[in-house]
Amino acid sequence: MRPVKSVGSVGSPSLLRQINSAAVLRAVRQAGPVSRPEIARLTGLSRPTVNDVVDELLRAGYFLERPPDGSTDARRPGPRPRLVGFRADLGYVLGLDIGANKLLAVVADLDGRVLASERRRAFDLSGADEVLRAAFETARAALGRAGVATSELMATAVGTPGVVELPSGRITLAPQIPGWEGLPLAERLAESLGRPVLADNEVHLALIAERWLGAIQGAEDALYIQLGIGIGAGILIGGQLYRGATGAAGEIGYLPLADPGSSPPDGVGQFEHAAGGRAFIRLGRRAAASAKGALLREMAGGDPASVDAEVIFGAALQGDPVARGVVEELVCRLARGVATATALLNPAVVVVGGGLSRAGQALLEPLERAVRDLVPVAPRFVLSNLGDEAVALGAVRTALDAAHDSLLTYVRQAM
Amino acid sequence: MRPVKSVGSVGSPSLLRQINSAAVLRAVRQAGPVSRPEIARLTGLSRPTVNDVVDELLRAGYFLERPPDGSTDARRPGPRPRLVGFRADLGYVLGLDIGANKLLAVVADLDGRVLASERRRAFDLSGADEVLRAAFETARAALGRAGVATSELMATAVGTPGVVELPSGRITLAPQIPGWEGLPLAERLAESLGRPVLADNEVHLALIAERWLGAIQGAEDALYIQLGIGIGAGILIGGQLYRGATGAAGEIGYLPLADPGSSPPDGVGQFEHAAGGRAFIRLGRRAAASAKGALLREMAGGDPASVDAEVIFGAALQGDPVARGVVEELVCRLARGVATATALLNPAVVVVGGGLSRAGQALLEPLERAVRDLVPVAPRFVLSNLGDEAVALGAVRTALDAAHDSLLTYVRQAM
Repeated sequence: MRPVKSVGSVGSPSLLRQINSAAVLRAVRQAGPVSRPEIARLTGLSRPTVNDVVDELLRAGYFLERPPDGSTDARRPGPRPRLVGFRADLGYVLGLDIGANKLLAVVADLDGRVLASERRRAFDLSGADEVLRAAFETARAALGRAGVATSELMATAVGTPGVVELPSGRITLAPQIPGWEGLPLAERLAESLGRPVLADNEVHLALIAERWLGAIQGAEDALYIQLGIGIGAGILIGGQLYRGATGAAGEIGYLPLADPGSSPPDGVGQFEHAAGGRAFIRLGRRAAASAKGALLREMAGGDPASVDAEVIFGAALQGDPVARGVVEELVCRLARGVATATALLNPAVVVVGGGLSRAGQALLEPLERAVRDLVPVAPRFVLSNLGDEAVALGAVRTALDAAHDSLLTYVRQAM
Repeated sequence: MRPVKSVGSVGSPSLLRQINSAAVLRAVRQAGPVSRPEIARLTGLSRPTVNDVVDELLRAGYFLERPPDGSTDARRPGPRPRLVGFRADLGYVLGLDIGANKLLAVVADLDGRVLASERRRAFDLSGADEVLRAAFETARAALGRAGVATSELMATAVGTPGVVELPSGRITLAPQIPGWEGLPLAERLAESLGRPVLADNEVHLALIAERWLGAIQGAEDALYIQLGIGIGAGILIGGQLYRGATGAAGEIGYLPLADPGSSPPDGVGQFEHAAGGRAFIRLGRRAAASAKGALLREMAGGDPASVDAEVIFGAALQGDPVARGVVEELVCRLARGVATATALLNPAVVVVGGGLSRAGQALLEPLERAVRDLVPVAPRFVLSNLGDEAVALGAVRTALDAAHDSLLTYVRQAM
């Protein structure tokens, strides 16, 4: 006889009321403010059951019923039904993006509506304590602007570079921020912001945001590629973020796809060194310093050392063959890593985000073409449309999920 | 307001009986013949509920109750409880492995007990029709030995190289077997074997077998690497096989990790060409033909062209530096691909199977060491222990799941 794990506890009739309440909560959480007939449709519950559950959650103060929006639906004349949503002042959530060069804090209510945000550049920070202090100040500024007290936070989530151990929220690998490695990030933030604080890798959260509000809403199997100074990937499987056995899934920067001409410094992965933002600028500056690099030099104000990604894409857009060669070389290097992830994972769609994605179709089209040449089954390519807010919005979504889960626990205990 | 998918239909009280029956069926299917108290423990159901459901399934003829095995449990004196299992003659399943050079058919009962198998080499077959005919003959021989009629088959599953589209079971990519590409494999087999026939990629099924009976029983996040003439990978996520958006997940042979000295022929992926069984033999024969390759030549009967994997590993085991160099070169090439998959997926464990894995620790240890040097977070490495029966056993497990699902449907309809 083979060993077997428990297949899970199942059913007494009282469990049904909890299942029904959970289904209604989930529908309102996923759909935002929504009418009772729509809840019945989304949950498959009968109208009387929906009414029972909604009335109970209204009485308990979790839900609020409000008139519909001003717009009328021409296809369905007559009065439109009222909308059921979370009571907005029941609590709030905070999403934080602690990056290698920026801080962003976003405050939202339980319906996922953004109330305020605060942004700060963080190039000048050194050491974990200084970064944590700046992050807390950024969060406090956003909370202040939203008129939300720290005590009203139901949950906080934070995205950051590196590998984050779950559920502890400890950073286990992070060459990007000095002193970050080994930091119990979630615990340290909870000291000032209260519990729970959930920490995760920034690319994981960006993927969650793209699926929630961005370029791949409702996708099942997708790959998010973040192209910036660092290179990272987020893996969506069956509509869920895949974190890996120890939170390190998607560490595409470490792929053994080296730049034959140059070895990476300590802590930087081979693929990131060969195809990341720094490699792009290295290639651009070398080209600008060459005899044929006149346009690149000119657009960089005469100094090859001032060439950046914007200058290279700008010159390429003007038809400069040297700049185009640089973009082609980068695309060729990037394509090997993206093709690798595609051959392994067979995603339906690849979303490209991060700083380099601001180049838009000038990057996406040649990249898609190059990947298609390398893999047996090619996915669709789309650009991220959340810009550099993706990580903070993914943190908001993660904090919302935690807040909704704790609501569900209260409701269960009350039944 | 954001669009939202249905969150699933939930509950009426009659649903509870179905949930309970499904839980009991699942426990018996996962644990094999099992006592009523054990079913209660596995499902979390009360003893009276378990008795109700089991009695109903005994009356309906799905279950059979039998005395316990002869052995006694010293820790628990007194009579041991009777065991509940599927009625063995309720129906049978067939697992088929249609490989590039072998056919294997395995017949099992609904408890997963293997009743008979039949093996045949298939080097000499050309064309899809001939392969299909030989596969059917192999299946018929196994069924005959088991005393099972085709009409008693509740489900068949088949593993084969290439990309298999689901749920149709059509082959969309298969350079390994001439005429295989485009073949509606499941449909063609169903003409002789009856429905349902489920087809899937051979490496996917090998992974299912390793989790069922092999080296990674009960694993959650794992990677299966098949090293033979071809190179393939199977991805286990949350205890489930991940097939990808179109069934092509794990096509690691197509990773863009080329052998710099040699281009792959049409249809063969770069990584497979650089690090597969043929590359190993190519390297070994070249070494055998060199001045220092005396031992390799001798062990191959004097002819460098007769060097194969066994000869190379054998000479390396005897300490021959030339053979050791060949193994080192292969391991170095393989490690890049395995490191790639590991960096992306962060599995807890990597299982190595396929023909080359017969070399055992002589391959596994240096491979593990080389991968560890390339990735930030290293997994555990283990050898497959199902040998070349893994694909057929994975097919048996897949067919069992389909048979059990159809049983569940009958039970639901009867309630």
